[in-house]
Amino acid sequence: MADFFEVVRSQRACRAFAPEPLSDELVELLLEAATHAPSAENRQPWVFVVVRDERRRALIAELARRAWDGGGRAQASGRLTSGLLADVEGGIGGGFATAPVVVVVCGDTGLGDGRVLPASVFPAVQNLLLAATASGLGSALTTLPLAFSDELSQALGLPDALRPMAVVPLGRPARPLRSPRRQPVSAKAHRERYGAGW
Amino acid sequence: MADFFEVVRSQRACRAFAPEPLSDELVELLLEAATHAPSAENRQPWVFVVVRDERRRALIAELARRAWDGGGRAQASGRLTSGLLADVEGGIGGGFATAPVVVVVCGDTGLGDGRVLPASVFPAVQNLLLAATASGLGSALTTLPLAFSDELSQALGLPDALRPMAVVPLGRPARPLRSPRRQPVSAKAHRERYGAGW
Repeated sequence: MADFFEVVRSQRACRAFAPEPLSDELVELLLEAATHAPSAENRQPWVFVVVRDERRRALIAELARRAWDGGGRAQASGRLTSGLLADVEGGIGGGFATAPVVVVVCGDTGLGDGRVLPASVFPAVQNLLLAATASGLGSALTTLPLAFSDELSQALGLPDALRPMAVVPLGRPARPLRSPRRQPVSAKAHRERYGAGW
Repeated sequence: MADFFEVVRSQRACRAFAPEPLSDELVELLLEAATHAPSAENRQPWVFVVVRDERRRALIAELARRAWDGGGRAQASGRLTSGLLADVEGGIGGGFATAPVVVVVCGDTGLGDGRVLPASVFPAVQNLLLAATASGLGSALTTLPLAFSDELSQALGLPDALRPMAVVPLGRPARPLRSPRRQPVSAKAHRERYGAGW
């Protein structure tokens, strides 16, 4: 049994994974959690493609690397702390590809147009990440490979109606994850009107 | 202590609330959970406006009702079961306004452009909903009032850089919530390539 608030407070992006595989039962437990997220009109417009094949995982990692080299690094380097930048570099340089499972979460445009899909798909992604944390796994919400959506869709045989929206590596963390760093509620909340503070 | 998987499996939209108020401590606990969601580059582009004032809550509920009358109902009525449609009607007809707290979750376009904001804001919204469930509260992810974003922004004094993205009523449920209904993982997951099934 995992305490809900402890899970929430310890969730953190993992960028280096141990090689041990994940059982089908475990992956299914995480996906079941994902499917319990809310969605507009309960239409459940999510589709999960679970990738274990080494070559396909390497291809997805390669798309992330190309997006990073092609502009992601330049954009991030002015904004990330040097520690976080090194962590991300390490993930893209190889850590990402070490995850034994990569889940590509897609939105079904037949069940919701592009305007409403994010509100109905990212809550499911968050459930997936939290369930991974609750199960002692590392995970991350990545979108870099989506810079090459067409290639990703082709590799996964996605029909035109499906839009890949998040790429989530899963596996045992290679090293213990540190605590997440967040600004306090008082920096982000306001009473009644913006500017009133908390 | 709330078991993580039990919280996830029991989360469900609440559309009628008991009038008892929520303490600041409880609201802050929920917002703290929200701030522990991941975001692109850990930029934390969320802002929460916590509305308790009765007139302001009534105005937000009125925006939802106008959006429903102005097209939401027509769109939904062909797609929702009669039970769910009646539940939503009840929520919009009055249940929404009974929530003692309404949290408007905004995305800060100064910390992420419109393309990346949803992936960085809806996970925080989902944490907020789950934390409410873990605390015995009802909640819902609504977007209907956003059909009148300008009026909502004005009522909350939002600067131009803030985009309201979700409206979350919070409170004790007026009646026990039923279990959520979801399609099984096997209907939504594929191995390696779309079409392969689970």
